Amino acid sequence: MSYSQRQARLRQRMEQEGVDAVLVAHLPNLRYLCGFSGSNGLLLVEQADRATLYTDGRYREQAGSEVQQARVVVPVRGDLWKAAARTARRRRRVGMENEHLTLTQRARWLAHWPGGARGLKNSSGWVEAQRAVKSPDEVAAIRRAVELASSVFPATVQKIRAGMSETALAGHLEFALRKAGGEGLAFDSIIAGGAHGAWVHAQPDARPLPRRGFVVMDYGVVLAGYHSDMTRTVHLGVADRRAREVYRAVLEAQQAAIAAVRPGARCAAVDRAARRSLEKAGWAKYFPHSTGHGVGLEIHEAPRLGATSRETLAAGQVITIEPGVYIPAWGGVRIEDVVLVTPAGAEVLTPTPKDLIYGL
Amino acid sequence: MSYSQRQARLRQRMEQEGVDAVLVAHLPNLRYLCGFSGSNGLLLVEQADRATLYTDGRYREQAGSEVQQARVVVPVRGDLWKAAARTARRRRRVGMENEHLTLTQRARWLAHWPGGARGLKNSSGWVEAQRAVKSPDEVAAIRRAVELASSVFPATVQKIRAGMSETALAGHLEFALRKAGGEGLAFDSIIAGGAHGAWVHAQPDARPLPRRGFVVMDYGVVLAGYHSDMTRTVHLGVADRRAREVYRAVLEAQQAAIAAVRPGARCAAVDRAARRSLEKAGWAKYFPHSTGHGVGLEIHEAPRLGATSRETLAAGQVITIEPGVYIPAWGGVRIEDVVLVTPAGAEVLTPTPKDLIYGL
Repeated sequence: MSYSQRQARLRQRMEQEGVDAVLVAHLPNLRYLCGFSGSNGLLLVEQADRATLYTDGRYREQAGSEVQQARVVVPVRGDLWKAAARTARRRRRVGMENEHLTLTQRARWLAHWPGGARGLKNSSGWVEAQRAVKSPDEVAAIRRAVELASSVFPATVQKIRAGMSETALAGHLEFALRKAGGEGLAFDSIIAGGAHGAWVHAQPDARPLPRRGFVVMDYGVVLAGYHSDMTRTVHLGVADRRAREVYRAVLEAQQAAIAAVRPGARCAAVDRAARRSLEKAGWAKYFPHSTGHGVGLEIHEAPRLGATSRETLAAGQVITIEPGVYIPAWGGVRIEDVVLVTPAGAEVLTPTPKDLIYGL
Repeated sequence: MSYSQRQARLRQRMEQEGVDAVLVAHLPNLRYLCGFSGSNGLLLVEQADRATLYTDGRYREQAGSEVQQARVVVPVRGDLWKAAARTARRRRRVGMENEHLTLTQRARWLAHWPGGARGLKNSSGWVEAQRAVKSPDEVAAIRRAVELASSVFPATVQKIRAGMSETALAGHLEFALRKAGGEGLAFDSIIAGGAHGAWVHAQPDARPLPRRGFVVMDYGVVLAGYHSDMTRTVHLGVADRRAREVYRAVLEAQQAAIAAVRPGARCAAVDRAARRSLEKAGWAKYFPHSTGHGVGLEIHEAPRLGATSRETLAAGQVITIEPGVYIPAWGGVRIEDVVLVTPAGAEVLTPTPKDLIYGL
């Protein structure tokens, strides 16, 4: 889908909502609507096919090359909010992303825009709703990122040795991602061995990988702006009965959740499928997070798959399925794939096998 | 300085400002005040030595191990805002970080806190002001991160070859950072060869390094939460007259700015020193960004060193000095060190030499 088509869909929404402009401040939304990938920008989308991107001097060259379907303006004194507010001075009702907008930013806008607070409407989620359902070219981009990340997994596992630091293993992993063409990490890689694996979002540090125990590896890569996300958990040394039981329980929960994925399924039901499976195995109380999330231009985006989610899945959405079990002072197991919601149900995009790897 | 001392200083400010609680939502501020390094949390600091950290189940284990000088609460339904608002229900006047708070978050607070919008006071910058001046142990932590990043530079330069992709060079660099113990990247590494170097914040991609031309390398590492930041620019092949002139002009501008650093100096004056130096050499119009920024628990923090900055330097601040020249379709040169403001003036913490490396 072209930038022009994406903006056209946003303009339809603007018309329904009765606003004659939307100020887009959330950077992934900017990238989605006009291609700009810098770290500072505002996009004013007006009716009548007009859109203006405001950025600072650092991005003049980049914006000139990247941006499509929007005029690029670099305000002299660098005040993007003032410049955008002036352009929009004749607009009566403007959408603003309250979800992302800080109180300070809103105040800066109101200082230069004559419409006042009453002229503002909360446009949170309008662009995100469009982004949640991916076009075929977006699915292809995510697939490339997912496959790149999966391709380096076997060689990385070969590097694992007891006593090696978590940061060293992260180094091998990330080097392989870069050599394979990764344009960035999707997030700070999680490499956590032994008891550290019970920290769901552990950052790798100098502690050595254990002689015996699990190592959680949760990582992703960015390619052409799109993110991958995968977790595999491998075991050093002999896996005892509890280790094998926990691993099997997590894998079964993950498969139960994937089996629940289809257009029209409630996100909460997918989460419940994973949670019930772990309940039956007796480990549910050690599963403290939600089952998954959408992935695309952001590592976490709509929909969320948690117990309190109210969303419903639709074909074309791309989500993660990632239950886990975390036992304090013992360790953790998490297994995560990226899954495409298809008209028929689900396609697991992550090609890496999920059999327990142990004895490293 | 201990967490207890840091909180005590915040409570002094609270007393001066007439609030009886502050809700801290900006994550680096949380880490500074109680040690929590997770990605989701709120810290309610009350008078009378009471502080409460709210987080979700993913961080229960981690918070239990990291957090000091605060009670840890994991609300059952995961609504941190509601839980914090209830704890604070008897507080009359509460500070909120408008700079970081979204309109949605404020609304969530007000839905559960009886004090109403009038009971809120903007506490933006209170913690940041404390953080801007580093204690000796913080300076030591930054120094370790800076020295780690510098230590891998010579070997990385040895890897550079014409035709190698930017991502491959980023891979060598980041692998070395991990092997040396880096706990994360301070930001997405910038590796930009030839004309791509004219993009101030270019992300490395598949394009090959040129046979002849500059390569900008801007990168940093995180160690114990503290960030490093450095840029060096090297030249592949013979450096012609313009390349040598631009390099010398940027280096002289960087040295002029460092010479202007001392307690009491205006940040704008440091920026002006770099800009004037480039003006004399005739390249100032190709320098589109500010001269530097504070660095610490965040990669960009107070103070900012730009033309419109109103801040004044103080001993104990740690800043970057990083002028650059970017010529469209030709390339860019940036040279960046981390600098400690000392009672006597400035100490450059980055040990890497700045002579032009060429002929690679």
